Amino acid sequence: MIVVMKRNAKKEEIDNVLKSIEEQKLKPVPLHGTERTVVAIIGDERVIHIDSLKAMNGVEKVMEVLQPYKLVSKEAKDKPSKVRVGDIVIGGDEIIVMAGPCAVESEKQIIDTAKAVKKAGAQILRGGAFKPRTGPYAFQGLGEEGLKLLAKARDVTGLKIVTEVVDVRDVQLVAKYADILQIGTRNMQNYPLLKEVGKINKPVLLKRGMWATYKELLLAAEYIMSEGNREVILCERGIRTFETYTRNTLDINAVPALKEMTHLPVVVDPSHATGKKSLVAPIAKAAVAAGADGVIIEVHPNPEKAVSDADQTLSTEEFAKLMKELKLIAEAVGRKL
Amino acid sequence: MIVVMKRNAKKEEIDNVLKSIEEQKLKPVPLHGTERTVVAIIGDERVIHIDSLKAMNGVEKVMEVLQPYKLVSKEAKDKPSKVRVGDIVIGGDEIIVMAGPCAVESEKQIIDTAKAVKKAGAQILRGGAFKPRTGPYAFQGLGEEGLKLLAKARDVTGLKIVTEVVDVRDVQLVAKYADILQIGTRNMQNYPLLKEVGKINKPVLLKRGMWATYKELLLAAEYIMSEGNREVILCERGIRTFETYTRNTLDINAVPALKEMTHLPVVVDPSHATGKKSLVAPIAKAAVAAGADGVIIEVHPNPEKAVSDADQTLSTEEFAKLMKELKLIAEAVGRKL
Amino acid sequence: MIVVMKRNAKKEEIDNVLKSIEEQKLKPVPLHGTERTVVAIIGDERVIHIDSLKAMNGVEKVMEVLQPYKLVSKEAKDKPSKVRVGDIVIGGDEIIVMAGPCAVESEKQIIDTAKAVKKAGAQILRGGAFKPRTGPYAFQGLGEEGLKLLAKARDVTGLKIVTEVVDVRDVQLVAKYADILQIGTRNMQNYPLLKEVGKINKPVLLKRGMWATYKELLLAAEYIMSEGNREVILCERGIRTFETYTRNTLDINAVPALKEMTHLPVVVDPSHATGKKSLVAPIAKAAVAAGADGVIIEVHPNPEKAVSDADQTLSTEEFAKLMKELKLIAEAVGRKL
Amino acid sequence: MIVVMKRNAKKEEIDNVLKSIEEQKLKPVPLHGTERTVVAIIGDERVIHIDSLKAMNGVEKVMEVLQPYKLVSKEAKDKPSKVRVGDIVIGGDEIIVMAGPCAVESEKQIIDTAKAVKKAGAQILRGGAFKPRTGPYAFQGLGEEGLKLLAKARDVTGLKIVTEVVDVRDVQLVAKYADILQIGTRNMQNYPLLKEVGKINKPVLLKRGMWATYKELLLAAEYIMSEGNREVILCERGIRTFETYTRNTLDINAVPALKEMTHLPVVVDPSHATGKKSLVAPIAKAAVAAGADGVIIEVHPNPEKAVSDADQTLSTEEFAKLMKELKLIAEAVGRKL
Repeated sequence: MIVVMKRNAKKEEIDNVLKSIEEQKLKPVPLHGTERTVVAIIGDERVIHIDSLKAMNGVEKVMEVLQPYKLVSKEAKDKPSKVRVGDIVIGGDEIIVMAGPCAVESEKQIIDTAKAVKKAGAQILRGGAFKPRTGPYAFQGLGEEGLKLLAKARDVTGLKIVTEVVDVRDVQLVAKYADILQIGTRNMQNYPLLKEVGKINKPVLLKRGMWATYKELLLAAEYIMSEGNREVILCERGIRTFETYTRNTLDINAVPALKEMTHLPVVVDPSHATGKKSLVAPIAKAAVAAGADGVIIEVHPNPEKAVSDADQTLSTEEFAKLMKELKLIAEAVGRKL
Repeated sequence: MIVVMKRNAKKEEIDNVLKSIEEQKLKPVPLHGTERTVVAIIGDERVIHIDSLKAMNGVEKVMEVLQPYKLVSKEAKDKPSKVRVGDIVIGGDEIIVMAGPCAVESEKQIIDTAKAVKKAGAQILRGGAFKPRTGPYAFQGLGEEGLKLLAKARDVTGLKIVTEVVDVRDVQLVAKYADILQIGTRNMQNYPLLKEVGKINKPVLLKRGMWATYKELLLAAEYIMSEGNREVILCERGIRTFETYTRNTLDINAVPALKEMTHLPVVVDPSHATGKKSLVAPIAKAAVAAGADGVIIEVHPNPEKAVSDADQTLSTEEFAKLMKELKLIAEAVGRKL
Repeated sequence: MIVVMKRNAKKEEIDNVLKSIEEQKLKPVPLHGTERTVVAIIGDERVIHIDSLKAMNGVEKVMEVLQPYKLVSKEAKDKPSKVRVGDIVIGGDEIIVMAGPCAVESEKQIIDTAKAVKKAGAQILRGGAFKPRTGPYAFQGLGEEGLKLLAKARDVTGLKIVTEVVDVRDVQLVAKYADILQIGTRNMQNYPLLKEVGKINKPVLLKRGMWATYKELLLAAEYIMSEGNREVILCERGIRTFETYTRNTLDINAVPALKEMTHLPVVVDPSHATGKKSLVAPIAKAAVAAGADGVIIEVHPNPEKAVSDADQTLSTEEFAKLMKELKLIAEAVGRKL
Repeated sequence: MIVVMKRNAKKEEIDNVLKSIEEQKLKPVPLHGTERTVVAIIGDERVIHIDSLKAMNGVEKVMEVLQPYKLVSKEAKDKPSKVRVGDIVIGGDEIIVMAGPCAVESEKQIIDTAKAVKKAGAQILRGGAFKPRTGPYAFQGLGEEGLKLLAKARDVTGLKIVTEVVDVRDVQLVAKYADILQIGTRNMQNYPLLKEVGKINKPVLLKRGMWATYKELLLAAEYIMSEGNREVILCERGIRTFETYTRNTLDINAVPALKEMTHLPVVVDPSHATGKKSLVAPIAKAAVAAGADGVIIEVHPNPEKAVSDADQTLSTEEFAKLMKELKLIAEAVGRKL
């Protein structure tokens, strides 16, 4: 950590900073420059109260040298992590495709979708049983009934299941049915929920908050991992910007950036990132080209009749076509699908 | 609702849209313009599946005429709502000041702060017992012990208490001690938590998500109100932008904008909105000048020793000085403090 | 255009709106809904003063049905435009790669770079002679001397030249040497400059303003085209968001989105969009996978010695490696390189 | 400047960094921490090529200690600068109000407005003769004819004139008529224009780019000042965010933040910052409460007939009312109006 003193900081103020650092069992190294004094701190800066340093008289700013996370970092583990769900490996050579409707609506809908996406080559079925909706009057999901239908679709097709948990009280329930638990964008900093999924032994798909920096996403993953669950998959799903033509702005930079910051697998959600079905295929291809380990895509046998996200949902035919295109991109980057 | 058809939409596509609207018991009015056809919908558009319309063939876009919320809107209630906490009225003539430390740390700290802010003129004591921290290794609050210390500070000073609830399982516990429950920025779209505080009979201070539009903030309030609890106070606390000099960007426009969109009271948090103690006083004054019903400010007897947010926390002396300045602004806008 | 009246708009206010529309030779169609009146306007809404309508008493909001641009739109021209620079076609089957240093520094530097990027397969040489730098004390470019060196590099290698013009008074000068004139992100709404490059007969590479919506980018292109120059290439180069790990956030959605909004070719600048050399290759590949017609990449024989943008510049070896990878992606999406 | 080496940086890489710093005549101080080596640089870091350092092998990141601007900084001049326009002092005790129409439309319009705003207490008349409009088909201003009408309004009322210059070729022309030259938000990084207004001897009102950080705004001012013109007034006019209810988001934090970063006066434009006439008055009051030295407000005798920005323009009556309210706020913060 580097403490930059104000230009006119008094000797006493500098001494207080040095003392405060020493009290925290770290070694301060004052550097008297031409314009101001800078104090470098030797030791593990993560133990320091950065806010308190900033609040001291004579301090202009404090700059962090180390990242505040540990378990998620490349420094903790150099090799890419592979998250396993049965036979499926997320973070390996194969591109993993998760597909299915925004919400589970009925047995026929989910089974038809599962069969179609399985046939097209998807390995994991997505579908919401508990839906976080912006307004209280929108369809909130089928709840446990939806989970049961997902399980039935798994029985029929052999696909694994990923589904969202929104309530800390439902973690055990969802874990009973799901193969992967999804934490949605709105809950990326719902710390009780992160801690709770950190205690189960199933993989977690952690979506980036639409306002969150890479660092904050990694700290959210750190919350889960620090509870013991090391099976975390990161998901870039678009951030909020000033552009309104699309629902969100996919931050494609996040894919290679996260890959250099962490050992965790990274997947991309082109459906929410665009909010427009016409953009889903090109963005899914871009994600794989950029190095994503997988994609998660909204598919419905009859998108016009979907109860939510209809305008960003592919039909099963459109999805099958995309899978063929994705396969070519996967091969072009030396992977398979 | 207005459905804009594509320029080259086929008659059959237009007919399908008309039919779909009629099936939802609403009246479509097609308008054939020079370049394209537009379909206006007469009736309460809130019942329509907007996504499904958008997904229909030949549809270019769908524009909403009405807002998707009801209870929070001026249309539901023209007169400003007053939220009462004992003798204190939020949303009336008086500017309400909530002040106290970021986190409750010890009995001495909270009681000393309470006495000081009470003396300076604050009506409500703030202080976190459950702290949502970006990283898992930071101080997470004293929990129920912190709530008890807040209650003790209330007993000693007569101040009312506002404190955050972060876990849906803690709502009853926090409600037992607090006079106002705070929903923090990260939880603005934590729907189970919103529903749960919607069922209690204590006021809720709802902070704007740092990514949330006014409309989404109002929909979050609608979640609470639709469960029965009508005592909601909105809080602008800064949004996330590209500027990094400050911790967040206070959206001062939100104060008069929300006042024209809703009947609910609006307060401002200049501490989190700036993240810098030197900016807190001018921004608090701006908030009152813009029409805010109150401010919530971080104060600590010894900011340098605060365990969190030290760099944005006023000392009790600085706070007392600010209160005198705020009083002048309050009077300049025809209110009192 | 759709005028939404306030819920309690008076008959007289509605009548004034109708009259005002008729005065502008358009046909108003009032629709009296259950909650409020909406007035649809039949005719070319682009002639209307939207601000004046918004300012009328009783008007709540005005929603545009048509886009405010014409020449750039798919409605003006359905087929993709091909911009030709000698034998090179931008917007055709072939992916076009523009490569070279941020700034022209010396004859040796630019000729060495030109030879290397030519050998690796680039068709166009980039290099700045006039540099827009954030601070006045940074290197501002070699000026005309730089243009001459670019021309010399063209003579030696046969590569075409793209270079930025920042001053309206330099348009003729730059056009004398360059094959394509670049308008940089900071000048996307420098209207005198747009108009001036609209009068020349050389293609213009128009970079998206880092704050600009797709619509604003298209309106900037419309400025150029409305002066007579129809040879415009759009360039997505990253927008400004809250993420600070990268220099900008590449809006990959822009590629397919612009492709459905306009007939103009779209290229991507992964160097500025990321600001980090380690991210350039994956993002370049993503761009091609998403449907971009080309990429523009910073390359320097010795990046560490580059006078600007050193940290986002590829070495010639890294560039040659990327070209091989890009070729595979191009083929995977049915194009060539 | 602080160079943070990668965790596994080789000794040779560290030595190269040290050597490179020494070659630039600065003194490197290597600090070998527990996890990585950090190199502090003693001396004026502004001469260093930061990009080149970042590009060196083994370097993880480079952090700046000093700001890259000089003339605008508090370090260059501690006391607040006062910009004088005849008798008017911007940056002194008095709050300065600039008011007038978005665009000069006719002699009657501008003279009527001038008289009305003068009567209400404004000291400076605003009005656009050259208008930067997002689309090429919108009214672009009366040009020199508009400047002459502004001059006539000055003759009639004694008000000073502020008007925008958008073309580097018009600087002399505009300077012939105007008392203050305005650089609009879109041109904040139009460096040729900044340099040109840096060479005249009239004050410049520099509006913040809607995408620009405080640092970038200050660097734009530095461009002007480094050419010799020290009479710069900064203007916060709203930044671009995700909120769409308002035209822009006024960054009220900018007022006190800029005041602590620079000695230059700071004014606020509530008209563009909100885009809604109903929000102009509360935001103008907030600006003064936050410490702004003045405000610039759009006023028109008949807003509905204004050719541009009608929906954010106050009538002369509304403006007169606001002036009375502003006076009370000015007094509440110890200033006058």
